[in-house]
Amino acid sequence: MTHLSQTPRVGVVMGSDSDWPVMLAAAEALAEFDIPHEVQVVSAHRMPQEMLEYGTSAAERGLSVIIAGAGGAAHLPGMLASTTPLPVIGVPVQLKTLDGMDSLLSIVQMPAGVPVATVSINGARNAGLLAVKMLAANTDDDALRLREALTTFSADLKDQAQAKGQNLKKRLAQPESS
Amino acid sequence: MTHLSQTPRVGVVMGSDSDWPVMLAAAEALAEFDIPHEVQVVSAHRMPQEMLEYGTSAAERGLSVIIAGAGGAAHLPGMLASTTPLPVIGVPVQLKTLDGMDSLLSIVQMPAGVPVATVSINGARNAGLLAVKMLAANTDDDALRLREALTTFSADLKDQAQAKGQNLKKRLAQPESS
Amino acid sequence: MTHLSQTPRVGVVMGSDSDWPVMLAAAEALAEFDIPHEVQVVSAHRMPQEMLEYGTSAAERGLSVIIAGAGGAAHLPGMLASTTPLPVIGVPVQLKTLDGMDSLLSIVQMPAGVPVATVSINGARNAGLLAVKMLAANTDDDALRLREALTTFSADLKDQAQAKGQNLKKRLAQPESS
Amino acid sequence: MTHLSQTPRVGVVMGSDSDWPVMLAAAEALAEFDIPHEVQVVSAHRMPQEMLEYGTSAAERGLSVIIAGAGGAAHLPGMLASTTPLPVIGVPVQLKTLDGMDSLLSIVQMPAGVPVATVSINGARNAGLLAVKMLAANTDDDALRLREALTTFSADLKDQAQAKGQNLKKRLAQPESS
Amino acid sequence: MTHLSQTPRVGVVMGSDSDWPVMLAAAEALAEFDIPHEVQVVSAHRMPQEMLEYGTSAAERGLSVIIAGAGGAAHLPGMLASTTPLPVIGVPVQLKTLDGMDSLLSIVQMPAGVPVATVSINGARNAGLLAVKMLAANTDDDALRLREALTTFSADLKDQAQAKGQNLKKRLAQPESS
Amino acid sequence: MTHLSQTPRVGVVMGSDSDWPVMLAAAEALAEFDIPHEVQVVSAHRMPQEMLEYGTSAAERGLSVIIAGAGGAAHLPGMLASTTPLPVIGVPVQLKTLDGMDSLLSIVQMPAGVPVATVSINGARNAGLLAVKMLAANTDDDALRLREALTTFSADLKDQAQAKGQNLKKRLAQPESS
Amino acid sequence: MTHLSQTPRVGVVMGSDSDWPVMLAAAEALAEFDIPHEVQVVSAHRMPQEMLEYGTSAAERGLSVIIAGAGGAAHLPGMLASTTPLPVIGVPVQLKTLDGMDSLLSIVQMPAGVPVATVSINGARNAGLLAVKMLAANTDDDALRLREALTTFSADLKDQAQAKGQNLKKRLAQPESS
Amino acid sequence: MTHLSQTPRVGVVMGSDSDWPVMLAAAEALAEFDIPHEVQVVSAHRMPQEMLEYGTSAAERGLSVIIAGAGGAAHLPGMLASTTPLPVIGVPVQLKTLDGMDSLLSIVQMPAGVPVATVSINGARNAGLLAVKMLAANTDDDALRLREALTTFSADLKDQAQAKGQNLKKRLAQPESS
Repeated sequence: MTHLSQTPRVGVVMGSDSDWPVMLAAAEALAEFDIPHEVQVVSAHRMPQEMLEYGTSAAERGLSVIIAGAGGAAHLPGMLASTTPLPVIGVPVQLKTLDGMDSLLSIVQMPAGVPVATVSINGARNAGLLAVKMLAANTDDDALRLREALTTFSADLKDQAQAKGQNLKKRLAQPESS
Repeated sequence: MTHLSQTPRVGVVMGSDSDWPVMLAAAEALAEFDIPHEVQVVSAHRMPQEMLEYGTSAAERGLSVIIAGAGGAAHLPGMLASTTPLPVIGVPVQLKTLDGMDSLLSIVQMPAGVPVATVSINGARNAGLLAVKMLAANTDDDALRLREALTTFSADLKDQAQAKGQNLKKRLAQPESS
Repeated sequence: MTHLSQTPRVGVVMGSDSDWPVMLAAAEALAEFDIPHEVQVVSAHRMPQEMLEYGTSAAERGLSVIIAGAGGAAHLPGMLASTTPLPVIGVPVQLKTLDGMDSLLSIVQMPAGVPVATVSINGARNAGLLAVKMLAANTDDDALRLREALTTFSADLKDQAQAKGQNLKKRLAQPESS
Repeated sequence: MTHLSQTPRVGVVMGSDSDWPVMLAAAEALAEFDIPHEVQVVSAHRMPQEMLEYGTSAAERGLSVIIAGAGGAAHLPGMLASTTPLPVIGVPVQLKTLDGMDSLLSIVQMPAGVPVATVSINGARNAGLLAVKMLAANTDDDALRLREALTTFSADLKDQAQAKGQNLKKRLAQPESS
Repeated sequence: MTHLSQTPRVGVVMGSDSDWPVMLAAAEALAEFDIPHEVQVVSAHRMPQEMLEYGTSAAERGLSVIIAGAGGAAHLPGMLASTTPLPVIGVPVQLKTLDGMDSLLSIVQMPAGVPVATVSINGARNAGLLAVKMLAANTDDDALRLREALTTFSADLKDQAQAKGQNLKKRLAQPESS
Repeated sequence: MTHLSQTPRVGVVMGSDSDWPVMLAAAEALAEFDIPHEVQVVSAHRMPQEMLEYGTSAAERGLSVIIAGAGGAAHLPGMLASTTPLPVIGVPVQLKTLDGMDSLLSIVQMPAGVPVATVSINGARNAGLLAVKMLAANTDDDALRLREALTTFSADLKDQAQAKGQNLKKRLAQPESS
Repeated sequence: MTHLSQTPRVGVVMGSDSDWPVMLAAAEALAEFDIPHEVQVVSAHRMPQEMLEYGTSAAERGLSVIIAGAGGAAHLPGMLASTTPLPVIGVPVQLKTLDGMDSLLSIVQMPAGVPVATVSINGARNAGLLAVKMLAANTDDDALRLREALTTFSADLKDQAQAKGQNLKKRLAQPESS
Repeated sequence: MTHLSQTPRVGVVMGSDSDWPVMLAAAEALAEFDIPHEVQVVSAHRMPQEMLEYGTSAAERGLSVIIAGAGGAAHLPGMLASTTPLPVIGVPVQLKTLDGMDSLLSIVQMPAGVPVATVSINGARNAGLLAVKMLAANTDDDALRLREALTTFSADLKDQAQAKGQNLKKRLAQPESS
């Protein structure tokens, strides 16, 4: 499904494979924009040393952006951010209690010096799109091509929203049959 | 103080000049990394049309990243994000009540399709640093130079933290004199 | 079902057609009071320019009140309020997490100068009734007729509540049969 | 200071005179638009019967809108809304604890059938402006004049915001003198 | 099921019959202690005048305690408390969003002068027991008899808890059979 | 100041003498109604055995109501309630963080079987008044006298509120002098 | 299933047997490390005297750690902590409303002098593991053996996480078959 | 002031020396019980590798317990817990916004397998006492001596509380002089 064969530009990591049903949407968004990426389980709490190594080596391995999802006392995004000059995008994953508020605060409230680009609770699709926007934040040809793709993407969003609006209007205009 | 003369790469905007004491730290961080940037008051609610134009024209004016600070029903970052392929970083500014929680939720809980890279409440310095990290998320020379600067920056953070730790240890080791 | 044919006095808009199951109740309340109204999908984030145009043209198109529903980082009501002298009623729509608290704060915490008349979470029926009350806040014949209708409506609410109380009493007075 | 001599169109009420420093801003906003209004202490809990009478008689006394401020278990706006076909605007007043969250929820979470148009915590100025918008939600001459005034008001807001932005830019462009 | 025939000592009221599945437990607790009581739908918002009359006449009708349940912007307990020298017990009823937090704050955060004895969210059984404790807060024979009954009740609670503990121990001691 | 000499009817207890500036208002309210009462430091966590004894012996020592104030993990009111058939009123005392929300939830969310009559955060005055209402919840002469006193008290509250309203009106009617 | 026959080192207690489905995980964790333990229902509110006795006698009965689970106004862990020099671990059990936030605050916000070692909401497994870590916090042979077991346990956690990561990678590498 | 010369049994660490005014109380509590300890600045985000090494080497360096304080996205306690078989006590340090709620949730909501013993917001003194209780959770002579010291400590707490209660009573018994 996703472009895992080429040298990946974006790393999508999560603390546990139980986060995959949420984080899947990040990989899908990257695939829609043909961004080569890798997917990995990297747990801050179960393999801290490997987690640091993942972050430390990310830039030299060719990654440009890291997307990290975690829930509860969600330390993975912030810990990775402390190991790399690359931007890290954090996805607060909702657990069974507290509606993701613990995940959100654990990710977004980083101390000065170590930012994490936080998206909405369970917002993995937006994490993928934000990574695309970051890759497009440049002036080379690749970036410009991505900007165009993002502009098309936004136009499609608008078209879809308007089509839905038209459908709603049609439904309301028709007398309800029995 | 800041590099406002060159063609700006980052736009720092806020809903009101009363946000400046918070947002100042974003501009300072950009200046530390020699990133040319512009500072502007752009209110989503008081000049919606101008706000949209700011976002729509940002990419062609040469900006690569937008940093937007807002408080309360903080709509500026999300609205700008809807107008541009550039990544938008949102800074939740704390108002007199609710400790910035309203600002945070208004900025971070964006719908699928329109991400905002949210930092901590009043976290403008981190917004600036995150913009630097985004500009470094590439493989050209400029990006690589920024990565090096970020690596030096992190090493400095470590040194300062360790120096503070040494000072604390020294203070504790000394008998308290009268 | 609703009076969509006449020149509408009230616009019922929402960011996505997925909000319709909630927002439907606003249209129903307007229909009960024979208020001509229109229903539209107007997304702040997916069609910002069209959204501003909706707001800017609302008054001259004959609308007197706008009802806007949105969830999460709910910017639609506040953005519309910034474009029109008409009163805007905001309906915080509950999303999958946070129980609508993000929607509520994003809508109600507007800065001075740009009010949004906020109703309860998912309170679209009350948004419709509030629009009727606004249309009745005048001294012309139409307004006075609406006031009478609202007075009858309140009396009906009371009668229903009392009837329910009587039923409850009867149930309690009867011995439970097997 | 305020136009208290003419037959009032808007009633500004509060549970206690200790709410006046907050509620004052509602009266000021009404005065800016030359809306005759009255100011009164009407306590839901200390004079419930008089409170109901205030609401019941409001319409026939010529009021078109009621603005009610209250804090904590803030019952005044909702109780007034249950007695009158007029729209009631609720202002959640912040007390010493909980940052106004109790006031907000007590006012905004009204049951179906009895809406309160809620503004932000301590948002009395916006309550006043919302009342003006409600009075402008009509097609008679008075309403149209108010709409024009509101349009001018919005233009002024924009001008002020832009002027502040210009000032900020100037300050940043100047070298800091000692 | 309940003792509704004698002159009631306790009034159990609620804003809507939809609260009955929760409030039922208050009536049951009163019945367990043979306290004659009445059950009624009294809506603060749908029949404000009747609600005030219920409170105003409660003492002379022979009631000693009022139990009032309500949800959301839950005004019923506080409004009744403002009309009577009798103690009013408030039961915050959980609605579909916010987990009863809005109901709790709307009931418990009463201003000085007008207390409401608030129990836990959906805690109607405890409201009934608290009413019994209030009726027992005296030195006459009836009160002393109730105190004895309450002491027996507490002893039963302890016995049940201990029995459950014994059962749990037994279950754990047994090897799990297939 | 307070009636501490007679056999006390109400016990006012708190976990620490640092709660006295808040709890003082409970004793004052009791004194206004000439209710003999005692004041004591009874800590659930620092003297658990003495705390249980206080509760266990309260009824036979002649107390009719216990008022208990506590902050943070506020266990005192609930623990006392578990030891006595007397009604226990809990006052959530605000500590330095969390605005009293921890205190409120620790007191109000009691399990079925052991109610605590909870008042507002720092609401010690209302705790005193609620105790008076409980003592008035009877039909003997003492209770009836208290009811009359409570009725007078409520009338005074109304008069004061109305007087404040008159003063506010006067102030507004006068031109502001320099 | 669990080692209940030997002299127990850890007591696992809960306020009600309805907490057992959550607290079970604490006993299981202890069993995995061969720690003899006891399981008991000890209710702070239904048997306060027995609860104090449980705590007071715990040390001399040979216990080294107490694990206490409770929900809502969760007083059991804190009350036990006030009776014993042993460390008490508190497990906030989630009830039907508030997602365990009331339980968490009631347990963790203990006053200075009486700590409770609080784990996550419903985190009974972690409570068991924390007890093991406490028993390992020494230099005798038993403690050293436990440390080794804990080190093995952590290595296993890492292996499992990595295996899951491998599986996820494999699944993603395979083309989805129909 | 503190016993820093002997081989430390407890490590007191914090993310920044700005946490020292809060964390000081942990060191003081350890000193009161003559527990040798060390104090260090160990930042999870500014020196991640050194932080992991601190945790990994803690046991072999002779530490038995680690106390870690951190604020905001407070990752230090949880990260240390992932590196060592020793129990880690987490102190949520309150930052300028959110009253320590972000710190609390970031520390307490750890995933299964990696517990952190969390104390109250700013509860560093209790962290120190909890470490003492952990060191006392054994049967060797040192542990038994600590238990005795803890028992004396608790008795002192009781005496102080009772003395404060006596003082309060005396103050109340005296007529207020002018």
